[in-house]
Amino acid sequence: MSISKSDKGKTVVATGVDTPWDLRYSELHSGDSGLTFKIERVIEATRSEFQRIDVLESKQFGKMLALYGSLMVAENDHNAYNEMISHVPLFTHPDPKRVLIIGGGDCGALTETLKHTGVTSCTMCEIDKQVVETSQKHFPHLTSGVDDPRAELLFRDGKEYVKESDDKFDVAMLDLSDPVGPAADLFQKPFHRDMYEKLTDDGIMVAQSESPFYNGDAIKAMWANLRDIFPIVKLYTCFMPIYPSSFWSFMLCSKKYDPVNDFDESRWSMNPLSTRYYNPEIHRAAFAHPQWVKKLLEE
Amino acid sequence: MSISKSDKGKTVVATGVDTPWDLRYSELHSGDSGLTFKIERVIEATRSEFQRIDVLESKQFGKMLALYGSLMVAENDHNAYNEMISHVPLFTHPDPKRVLIIGGGDCGALTETLKHTGVTSCTMCEIDKQVVETSQKHFPHLTSGVDDPRAELLFRDGKEYVKESDDKFDVAMLDLSDPVGPAADLFQKPFHRDMYEKLTDDGIMVAQSESPFYNGDAIKAMWANLRDIFPIVKLYTCFMPIYPSSFWSFMLCSKKYDPVNDFDESRWSMNPLSTRYYNPEIHRAAFAHPQWVKKLLEE
Repeated sequence: MSISKSDKGKTVVATGVDTPWDLRYSELHSGDSGLTFKIERVIEATRSEFQRIDVLESKQFGKMLALYGSLMVAENDHNAYNEMISHVPLFTHPDPKRVLIIGGGDCGALTETLKHTGVTSCTMCEIDKQVVETSQKHFPHLTSGVDDPRAELLFRDGKEYVKESDDKFDVAMLDLSDPVGPAADLFQKPFHRDMYEKLTDDGIMVAQSESPFYNGDAIKAMWANLRDIFPIVKLYTCFMPIYPSSFWSFMLCSKKYDPVNDFDESRWSMNPLSTRYYNPEIHRAAFAHPQWVKKLLEE
Repeated sequence: MSISKSDKGKTVVATGVDTPWDLRYSELHSGDSGLTFKIERVIEATRSEFQRIDVLESKQFGKMLALYGSLMVAENDHNAYNEMISHVPLFTHPDPKRVLIIGGGDCGALTETLKHTGVTSCTMCEIDKQVVETSQKHFPHLTSGVDDPRAELLFRDGKEYVKESDDKFDVAMLDLSDPVGPAADLFQKPFHRDMYEKLTDDGIMVAQSESPFYNGDAIKAMWANLRDIFPIVKLYTCFMPIYPSSFWSFMLCSKKYDPVNDFDESRWSMNPLSTRYYNPEIHRAAFAHPQWVKKLLEE
């Protein structure tokens, strides 16, 4: 609404017409190229003990959660990231019972995991309680798993938990933000070795591994490290429209089961889950890569 | 470089320091969300009889061609679009000899097609000669096919050519810009019916069909129309980082061969082509779709 005074001191009545609102969120790789959205509404803009937390709304993506200035989830992202980090290992392992999530504060992976009726417990170790609270407030469809009696939420440093606890898991997910700031250590080899020890003898770990398009060097480093530790390491990808380049990757690290050759879709066929992205065909297809990605993984 | 004169008429020596150059290209869906790039250099900015033609350069994507203000190809797009529109039908058909491309002015599809030694002729019908000339000048790696004796370039309206010519083709590609402006008719059912008639009895047509993320309605309409005409219609996708949402689709329309069930990769195994994106695994995987895309295609 524009309010002004004339030169002669008379009050000019405000027109009641807003100036066009053009608030724009951009997430650019090296300040050069990336995604940009028009923001209709800033719903919450706060800061926890650990990071900046924003909840924004855009026409195309609906409500979106940004941590430390990076988009994490959106109502209209088709839930690709959460479903692919959880269902791919959970359908690769023939009978996953105990599940660990490191990070995962938006609770999307937790909620997807608990759709598996065979899972008996899902421990989520998230350092920032405020992320969980903010997600519960604004993204109820992502956080319904929190109320499941099989969910155990620990608000503490994942690295310490993994070092100190004696628990073993069938499936573990490193549902981390980018390899900068507080999560940086959780992308490194010493932590991955500790994670190997947290798994049962036929356990599976999945780590989110950034965008093949923008983060080739990070992927190469993770790939080399993880292949030193696990006998089976496979990259897979999904289309995630709010992440840099929209093309996102994960590394599945396994002691026994191969995610394609040992994948048995009968569990899905008998009891398909309600998903927006994952299905058995996309499970298999996610492990096929363009020539340029295959080249990236050559040693 | 800033040059100025002082108030008193003395010439102030230019500092030699440029003002920071921040030229930005953005391609936004409904003015709301999309891609944005920093532009290092505008190499050419011109207008043909039909459209605006720009050649830009960015650090991330290298040289890029934009037609009517939309990005078409870039040096660093991994050639995904051109390889997927051509190699998927050319490796689905067991022995493609005669190929037709409608549009395709950057010549990328032509060049990929002529990598197939069994192809005896490739007719490209592009209305705008200036697009071909601009591409030849700035994108030599895309346009090398033009010099192949099997290439026949016609600079005329594709719709008229298809109506008037008696030629038949094993594979045809609708390598068109978006369904607005001069190409709009080429996305409609009457033209698709004419294309059906241009194919041999076991012929295959591929049409680029926009982004499933942004253009769901256009995809639904094309899907319904094409399934009225062809016995086999399959959607496939690729990761194309300079197109809206980076997630792009094609419809393969076939009289006889199924692109997955009838796909025989022995031709590739015996003689793999030099590609940056396409390979037999990605050929198959491109036909698997997330739940939300499958839902889009339900009738």
